[in-house]
Amino acid sequence: MKNLVSLSEAINSLSRTLGETINLDVESVKLTQATGRIIAQDIYALEDRPSRDSTAVDGYAVRSIDTLGATQYNPVELRVIGVLRPGQTPSDICLEPGTSIRVHTGALLPCGADAVLMDEDVKSIGDKIYVYRQAPKGLNIVLRGEDFKKGDLLASKGEVVKPAVVTALAASGLMDIFVYRRIRVSIVAIGDELIEPGSRVVNGRVYNSSAYTIYSSLVKDGIFDVYYTGIIPDNVEALRKVFDREVERGVDIIITTGGTGVSESDVISRIIEQADRVVFRGVKMRPGRPTTSFVYRGKIVLSLSGYPVAAWTGYELILRNALIKWLGLKGFERKYIYAVLDKRTPNNVGYTSLIRVIVRDENGVFHAEPYMLRGSGVISSLLKTNGYIVIPEELEGYEKNDVVRVYLYD
Amino acid sequence: MKNLVSLSEAINSLSRTLGETINLDVESVKLTQATGRIIAQDIYALEDRPSRDSTAVDGYAVRSIDTLGATQYNPVELRVIGVLRPGQTPSDICLEPGTSIRVHTGALLPCGADAVLMDEDVKSIGDKIYVYRQAPKGLNIVLRGEDFKKGDLLASKGEVVKPAVVTALAASGLMDIFVYRRIRVSIVAIGDELIEPGSRVVNGRVYNSSAYTIYSSLVKDGIFDVYYTGIIPDNVEALRKVFDREVERGVDIIITTGGTGVSESDVISRIIEQADRVVFRGVKMRPGRPTTSFVYRGKIVLSLSGYPVAAWTGYELILRNALIKWLGLKGFERKYIYAVLDKRTPNNVGYTSLIRVIVRDENGVFHAEPYMLRGSGVISSLLKTNGYIVIPEELEGYEKNDVVRVYLYD
Repeated sequence: MKNLVSLSEAINSLSRTLGETINLDVESVKLTQATGRIIAQDIYALEDRPSRDSTAVDGYAVRSIDTLGATQYNPVELRVIGVLRPGQTPSDICLEPGTSIRVHTGALLPCGADAVLMDEDVKSIGDKIYVYRQAPKGLNIVLRGEDFKKGDLLASKGEVVKPAVVTALAASGLMDIFVYRRIRVSIVAIGDELIEPGSRVVNGRVYNSSAYTIYSSLVKDGIFDVYYTGIIPDNVEALRKVFDREVERGVDIIITTGGTGVSESDVISRIIEQADRVVFRGVKMRPGRPTTSFVYRGKIVLSLSGYPVAAWTGYELILRNALIKWLGLKGFERKYIYAVLDKRTPNNVGYTSLIRVIVRDENGVFHAEPYMLRGSGVISSLLKTNGYIVIPEELEGYEKNDVVRVYLYD
Repeated sequence: MKNLVSLSEAINSLSRTLGETINLDVESVKLTQATGRIIAQDIYALEDRPSRDSTAVDGYAVRSIDTLGATQYNPVELRVIGVLRPGQTPSDICLEPGTSIRVHTGALLPCGADAVLMDEDVKSIGDKIYVYRQAPKGLNIVLRGEDFKKGDLLASKGEVVKPAVVTALAASGLMDIFVYRRIRVSIVAIGDELIEPGSRVVNGRVYNSSAYTIYSSLVKDGIFDVYYTGIIPDNVEALRKVFDREVERGVDIIITTGGTGVSESDVISRIIEQADRVVFRGVKMRPGRPTTSFVYRGKIVLSLSGYPVAAWTGYELILRNALIKWLGLKGFERKYIYAVLDKRTPNNVGYTSLIRVIVRDENGVFHAEPYMLRGSGVISSLLKTNGYIVIPEELEGYEKNDVVRVYLYD
């Protein structure tokens, strides 16, 4: 591999190619089906919320002028002339001087009222209340449109739908929303040496794990329809058959694990000769250096390493970021913290490094212990670590006690 | 409401009641179906990984003794007698003095070899290599069991399955794993004032949003099968019918939104009279004070506020924590950061407060701006905030510039 690209070049060119090769149709879903889907167009509130001035608490709607001078020792007596709950239309009762109306939180403000007293500010005896404090105009009232106004942006294109968005859309009366269809991904495991978990191990063979790493990561991220094709031997004809079948099935992206390596005789190198074009071939990052992408019969192929951690790094740093860039995804980025690095962590200048770390909380300060190991196939590191740092290509690394950004595994 | 319990009492008693009322069967799923499910029994590695000493890099397997004294200026010449890839059994080739074998990462170490030289440490010409450095014994070798050993714990009971676990299980040859069945939850929206999103608004009516907040939160958390029953009026007979139907359907938990309030005439207060027993009735927390739980015909009912933020608080602080406690869930806790509080945030001593905040990253330091508003129904606060702080009942609040723990919305 000679023309390795930088990580940012890989992300940019993959993002561009996603846009060129995938026609991501929009579909309408019910609110109950929307969680985790990607909003396809900006959504604005259709009306004010609340639709009219409303009560913010359980209590008594009053005319503020009636409560002038009221104190604990000099209460004002008001007559309670009715009850209003949310959903009731108050137009049939109106406050006259010296009266009040019992209200439940969310009820529309009755006509004549301009303040609401909380239960603890009054004493109720029979149909009378004794008011122990003055109620300034507007007390405990939610003004029309205070929550949101007609035309306010509730959710924007590219946003991944979360409970807060569902709440806002429901509250504004929307049930059907437009989202992108899920992105269809097929995962192909490549390698003569592989056997599937669940089979009996044959001497020297290794269990396929990388394809399952990617499968699980895609399922977890929730915006994909994921297919798994099984293991294909290191044979370019067999691989081509699978690619052709997946292309005809209408998949958007084919992800392969394995079959990449130093040798020009690797099966990925050979199938690239039949590709429409190469997106990038090898990335200046570690792990995941052999990560390669090309277009085959109009579809993107992302070829990841055969080693699970390296394969995952290719998904995590390249495909996820390319998707974020392409669709303007919001709420899809990894959460991160800042942590004190436990030891010096060197980097090969020119390469972006992903270093897994074990984060621990020491009395309110996060510390990150880098977990560096030879070989990118080390599974136990994935179980033990709970975050990763990314060292940019221009840095020689981080020193002990540097404060670094740690992305948290989901 | 008189006998409000503390938040921790509510969590404890709900956790206990979950254990008493739910029989959470175990089922076997394939690895591809396992992501997001809860592991039902500890899983140990069935064999060492790697199963034998293996090569950690692409390069040449050598006898370390043959490389003694090799330097850039005084290379040692070795004959390459074969190639080994992962999955090939090396028993038919053995290293004699003066020979080496080309190896690909992950290949088993050939007999006679005790070190592996990387490509950059040798020069290859025809069937010869020139070795430019001494190879200490063990160089670039992954020892048998170095990744994990037979009997190592790979995943433990109560763990929510994530890509790292899937990877480890696949790598150890496991395809079928035991997980708990999903917890079946029915959501019932209560309130005469409610109409469903998608319908035309009638004056004074409000759109049902709380049930959708809870629906979306449960879907996102992934361990539930979620049903939604629709809106039930404030009518105890209608509610009983729905409860009876859901109980007969075999639901584990019924969650209601709304129907709780100050008044003893509220529908939840009235149906409690027909309950087997009360778990708790009102919680010393804000928002979410009316949150109530009881057992109805052997099934847990969790009655949440009708206001979306208060309902969500009940789910977030009570049910989630009770589930974590009951099942010993690992990987289900919210991620958190530490942030500098932008302003003084008072608390009612005796109450646990959940305060939503807007977190921003200022050059590597997180700041949290509390978003306090009257009424717990304010939707826009959910859209604007991205985390929350919890003020324990014994504190009077936090001061400006206090460093506080902020839980991040998922």
